[in-house]
Amino acid sequence: MDIEKANAEATERMMGAQPVLVGLRKALDVVPGMRENLLLHAGPPITWERASGPMRGAITGALIFEGKAEDEAGARALVESGEIELEPCHEHQAVGPMAGVICPSMSVYVLENKTHGNKAYSNLNEGYGKVLRYGAYSQEVIDKLRWMEDVMAPALADAIEASEGLDIRALLSESLHMGDEGHNRNKAGSILYTTKLAPFIVKVADADVASEILRFLGDNALSVLNPVMGACKAMVDAAHGVEGSTIVTVMARNGTDFGIRVSGLGDRWFTAPVATPQGLYFPGFEAEDASGDIGDSTIMETAGIGGFAMATAPAIVNFVSGTPEDAMNATLEMYEITYAEHTHFTIPVLDFRGTPTGIDVRKVVEKNLTPRINTGIAHKDPGVGQVGAGLVRPPMQMFEEALGAFADKYGY
Amino acid sequence: MDIEKANAEATERMMGAQPVLVGLRKALDVVPGMRENLLLHAGPPITWERASGPMRGAITGALIFEGKAEDEAGARALVESGEIELEPCHEHQAVGPMAGVICPSMSVYVLENKTHGNKAYSNLNEGYGKVLRYGAYSQEVIDKLRWMEDVMAPALADAIEASEGLDIRALLSESLHMGDEGHNRNKAGSILYTTKLAPFIVKVADADVASEILRFLGDNALSVLNPVMGACKAMVDAAHGVEGSTIVTVMARNGTDFGIRVSGLGDRWFTAPVATPQGLYFPGFEAEDASGDIGDSTIMETAGIGGFAMATAPAIVNFVSGTPEDAMNATLEMYEITYAEHTHFTIPVLDFRGTPTGIDVRKVVEKNLTPRINTGIAHKDPGVGQVGAGLVRPPMQMFEEALGAFADKYGY
Repeated sequence: MDIEKANAEATERMMGAQPVLVGLRKALDVVPGMRENLLLHAGPPITWERASGPMRGAITGALIFEGKAEDEAGARALVESGEIELEPCHEHQAVGPMAGVICPSMSVYVLENKTHGNKAYSNLNEGYGKVLRYGAYSQEVIDKLRWMEDVMAPALADAIEASEGLDIRALLSESLHMGDEGHNRNKAGSILYTTKLAPFIVKVADADVASEILRFLGDNALSVLNPVMGACKAMVDAAHGVEGSTIVTVMARNGTDFGIRVSGLGDRWFTAPVATPQGLYFPGFEAEDASGDIGDSTIMETAGIGGFAMATAPAIVNFVSGTPEDAMNATLEMYEITYAEHTHFTIPVLDFRGTPTGIDVRKVVEKNLTPRINTGIAHKDPGVGQVGAGLVRPPMQMFEEALGAFADKYGY
Repeated sequence: MDIEKANAEATERMMGAQPVLVGLRKALDVVPGMRENLLLHAGPPITWERASGPMRGAITGALIFEGKAEDEAGARALVESGEIELEPCHEHQAVGPMAGVICPSMSVYVLENKTHGNKAYSNLNEGYGKVLRYGAYSQEVIDKLRWMEDVMAPALADAIEASEGLDIRALLSESLHMGDEGHNRNKAGSILYTTKLAPFIVKVADADVASEILRFLGDNALSVLNPVMGACKAMVDAAHGVEGSTIVTVMARNGTDFGIRVSGLGDRWFTAPVATPQGLYFPGFEAEDASGDIGDSTIMETAGIGGFAMATAPAIVNFVSGTPEDAMNATLEMYEITYAEHTHFTIPVLDFRGTPTGIDVRKVVEKNLTPRINTGIAHKDPGVGQVGAGLVRPPMQMFEEALGAFADKYGY
């Protein structure tokens, strides 16, 4: 068995995937396996008992949003009784930032990989402040979700349809030349996204609603985060399932466990307890307020952007800590553990070198070097929200276990 | 007389100026000294006889737009007879890109420096292809100007008023962290501009018109070029007229002559023949098609951005030629001839160092080092348009003459 050949194929598929945003639909109607009593969540599988504060908060909020619970105790009862089931987004072709909770009546972006035909899904971005994805679930949070679902989503759905699709890989290629790394900094991408949809939004909504939507999308430097996550999911899914490949196709955290999947090792999760991110805290918060690492947004690093593309986003250090030199070094270091250099995502300051793409489990273990990840930091208690942003690395143990499993399966 | 103190004052005024886009009005109604038979143009004073091809083309187009001429011969007759007069934009608190022709019935952006109270003006940007500013004047060019004036301008004027003003210095601070250098690359700035105005545009225009305007602004990576030029003009005007200052407050070209003005030397122009930019040409064109250096957009470099901020815009080399390392070196070199480092415009990759700001005539001459300029390249014949983009330097002779005049006036 030729691992090199398998990894070349996996990374070529990952980079050759062309995810286009083709729609926005109710999760229940489009997400494979979605059902009335199911909540999807970030990371590998989790139970209520082992769930982190922000994950419990987001589950509670989603069940309030669905009209199925009134508070945390009610949510807990539904989940612990099995009446409401929890499954990872990743097991349903979906991804969600932070807690990543997607419930049946939420709208999700539909990304279609035009090269290989697979689809992926992600929810709408709520912006900053008190938001469900960071575990907040006050009335203010639910009201915003309601407005997003009832007012914004129908117009956005019509606008996306009228646009005949937005090529998110092309948008990312552009935004990476505009100081974004695509994970914690999506400022350029979000206004590119807003600008591209604006001519359609004004035609499908009345003036006041269109104005409100354009302000919401334009003021939120994370508007495009979720479509980008969906696009990255479509890319890595295209690279999954290549026999004999040691390329990582999923990295995701639920606040308790970090989990990875490997292209040549099927749907098995390799998990280990999450670390706590190191970074900069918002005024009034400090390191001891932080939840463990959480979210599916590590799909970015899995696809060769985010922490791997920090060299192209030196201004991000104001948000995640460190210096522009650290940012450059983060990218240079990631070439050590990746198989390819991206053919569509390039870094001008490195003479347009492609971003380090396709984490190779062998290299991670052999060089004793784990991936670098940029991330938001949630409060450890349910109901609070974001407290900062920073940097984190996944536990080495998962990669060692995956390599062991690879050896067992393939005799490597 | 203390030159250092004067230069400190001039550069502090330049950097302390806070230009806000407060309106869009007919030039005749707001530009000081504008009159029915006047055309403003880029650079120092020029006659028809000495005017370059693109300047003649733009004058012709403006007079067709005003309904005063039908062709180049008609335009020439009006200008040579003195019936139509030509004066520099810079002598009317205005600036225009490339030929920079502003006629009485064109709308101009109104920039107000909130710190010192002075105002500055610039026209609307036409986008790419066949455009007046590059000397094209076919029916297609005039039709687009008509749409801009009759359809877009009224809506934009209402939207700017409803916005209560856009702080262009703040927008530039942001776009310089998004891969723009503010002169030849205004991609981020233009979508920031579009995104900020969009919520207002949809409220003041009907849906079809709003959609058309949003597409026009959003697809044009130079939408914000003219408001930024106006903002830079407001900044450098605030630094002009400081007794004993050797800081350059105007650099401008009309396609034939380059002209500069110096803070401590009043309104006198120091001029010399322009060079021809070196750069990359569009398919089908080559160096011998190029007009001499033209445009008021060197106001950017005068204010500390553009070629001076290239280190923050490495992706620009795909457009103007060179390598990311050249771009970095351009900025580093400009620290040699400037007095200050900008307090609002910073370069992340240089550890957020301020851009080199305030060209000091003494340093230019003493170090035998002229400013670096990014620029578009026009075809040398009237009626053709843009043929490329590149780099150019102003003639040293002007700086030497200015230093001589400074010595004469101040005994330096």
